[in-house]
Amino acid sequence: MDAMQGNNHDDVRRHNLSIILRLVHRDGAASRAQLTRLTGLNRSTIGALVAELAEHGLVEERTPDPTKLAGRPSPIVAASDRVVAIAVNPEIDAVTVGVVALSGVVHRRIRWAVSSVPSAAEAVSLTAGIVTELRRDLEQYSIIGIGVAVPGLVRASDGLVRLAPHLGWVDEPFCDLLAAATGLPVVAANDASLGANAERYFGAGRGMTDVIYLNGGASGIGGGLIVGGAVAGGLAGYAGEFGHTRVSSGSSTDSAGIAGTLEAEVTRAALLDVLGLRGSETDADALERALLASDSPVVRAEVARQLDFLAVALASAVNVLNPQLIVLGGFLAALHAADADRLSSAVGALALGAAFEGVQITPAQLGSNLLVIAAAELAFEALLLDPQTIVGNISG
Amino acid sequence: MDAMQGNNHDDVRRHNLSIILRLVHRDGAASRAQLTRLTGLNRSTIGALVAELAEHGLVEERTPDPTKLAGRPSPIVAASDRVVAIAVNPEIDAVTVGVVALSGVVHRRIRWAVSSVPSAAEAVSLTAGIVTELRRDLEQYSIIGIGVAVPGLVRASDGLVRLAPHLGWVDEPFCDLLAAATGLPVVAANDASLGANAERYFGAGRGMTDVIYLNGGASGIGGGLIVGGAVAGGLAGYAGEFGHTRVSSGSSTDSAGIAGTLEAEVTRAALLDVLGLRGSETDADALERALLASDSPVVRAEVARQLDFLAVALASAVNVLNPQLIVLGGFLAALHAADADRLSSAVGALALGAAFEGVQITPAQLGSNLLVIAAAELAFEALLLDPQTIVGNISG
Repeated sequence: MDAMQGNNHDDVRRHNLSIILRLVHRDGAASRAQLTRLTGLNRSTIGALVAELAEHGLVEERTPDPTKLAGRPSPIVAASDRVVAIAVNPEIDAVTVGVVALSGVVHRRIRWAVSSVPSAAEAVSLTAGIVTELRRDLEQYSIIGIGVAVPGLVRASDGLVRLAPHLGWVDEPFCDLLAAATGLPVVAANDASLGANAERYFGAGRGMTDVIYLNGGASGIGGGLIVGGAVAGGLAGYAGEFGHTRVSSGSSTDSAGIAGTLEAEVTRAALLDVLGLRGSETDADALERALLASDSPVVRAEVARQLDFLAVALASAVNVLNPQLIVLGGFLAALHAADADRLSSAVGALALGAAFEGVQITPAQLGSNLLVIAAAELAFEALLLDPQTIVGNISG
Repeated sequence: MDAMQGNNHDDVRRHNLSIILRLVHRDGAASRAQLTRLTGLNRSTIGALVAELAEHGLVEERTPDPTKLAGRPSPIVAASDRVVAIAVNPEIDAVTVGVVALSGVVHRRIRWAVSSVPSAAEAVSLTAGIVTELRRDLEQYSIIGIGVAVPGLVRASDGLVRLAPHLGWVDEPFCDLLAAATGLPVVAANDASLGANAERYFGAGRGMTDVIYLNGGASGIGGGLIVGGAVAGGLAGYAGEFGHTRVSSGSSTDSAGIAGTLEAEVTRAALLDVLGLRGSETDADALERALLASDSPVVRAEVARQLDFLAVALASAVNVLNPQLIVLGGFLAALHAADADRLSSAVGALALGAAFEGVQITPAQLGSNLLVIAAAELAFEALLLDPQTIVGNISG
């Protein structure tokens, strides 16, 4: 709740409903006894709150199999499989649409390949068509809304896509267009910021409050950060652009035309090149296998060169943010796997000793479901903040 | 309050007392009508909360001069001048001790020069002596506790000074020693992180949620950051070390022995050198006047060289954090004043356009009171969070 607003008793109830729903959504099903312990609320309050959430269809209570338990079994409270969000991720060669339940189950993931880079209008039209089909298919589900993971800068205030360089989108009101085409509420944010958040709640960063996430893709390096337990967006939602950190005095430029940056020096294309592989046939897992299998000195040298530049950017980030965890996704995870010790030593040599103490560097865990889970989480946010109000507005 | 804890009605009262006290402490005296509007609470609740705070001596109610107002005057609620915190800032050549009221008034500031760099034990002994004198002098005041601004890395969990390189302190339990010597609660944090917080509440960053602060001193460059409205400490409280960001491929090293960093390239010593000035006789204001007065091409070139390196570090910070405001203190403020346009253009050329849009770069505002206000604010934090419990423990 707003730190400068006073509380009244309605606020308290709303806050408590939110707390319970968040707990079972993010940490999985829990018994009433566990919820009592975790929240510090008393049993009867928990009972009333759970009953209210169940009445709205947001949670289900299941009695565990009594033959397997000693004593009286405490009912298990689980987030609903039927309350869902739709996740959208437009890319240069495909639009991915997913359906994710409040329980975390990914019901659908459709990757719709396109033959040319879609305009915003084309992506809206394509997405709206898929959503129409999905709604027919998922009649018994309640759809909360749509979350969009955008490979670019998204203005936090209204979801305007300011710049998605690889898609060629500039100042595209993608959210407004998609909301108009589907009649559903639509929210959007940067894909890597959402990825950072998803890894924090459901992946490598579970339970952590200070996490840096860098993702390497065909088109460059994006990132996101969790600071003090919250996604750090900054003034307008553009925080997390680690790819444009200066790491060398070299003259190669990045996607924004800036020389000597992480994105200019550390590239998937250069790794594919020394391995003699083609990008269209090599996903991040295949790249990792190829790097691990190779004993070519040319490959080793390129891996070392890229890891050393990655270390420069990570060391600066460690000094400035003192994170608990650095999560690497996409081709950066493959690069890390190729020589994790070298990366860790190089960061250690360039970062302040105390700031690097206890910092872990680890690959992302959510794999191919990452952006679908991440975008759905954005759509769930309003519901998790105020379950009662939002659920009253769902059409079903 | 803890985001995962449920609320009960005692929590609500505690939260509301905290909100009111924070408002009058941070934003200055306010009428009950203003407090009603700002908090969303009703008039009778505000009245009861203010009465409780007044009873504890934390706020005073004053009736404005009725001859100057039309209608019935609303009483003005002001934070107390007599509830104070003691601020301590140990440095290589002096220990500064201040007394700051909850109202923001700086009652005392004593800079006790020392002839050699003080050990932690010497700084404790000196500080305790000054505090004893102050308590005799300030009998009618209630002392909340001591806040310490340390020029080094301070572990957030217990205030252990992990490393203060210029003082030569390593793993010094300065807080515990000072608490034992004075019988007062003592909290400590990095000086630049505290400075960032003070500028955010009382200086250039008033009302802002995303602020970067870099301070340049004789011994290097420190910094702090406010992210999403909160001081970002990171895993162990070491966040904000912008001075060790890599900005060049040069070989000069910084205070941590790392080459090519901001702190290695951008130094007060080099500015004094080209100006032909001595550090011991030149404070930040004098340096700024000398830089502005000089038309030497050598000085111009050195200013340009340093500004361009400062821009590299700031651009990376802008890309990663998308701040609203960059505050520069100490000799960095002087450097900025010497050619603000060059700095802004250089950052603009290296940062992502959208991330730099609307970002202001400005000198720090609190001047010589900065660290005293900053350290006192740290000591007030527990009181502001839970006024009723803390005030019950004050000896007076």
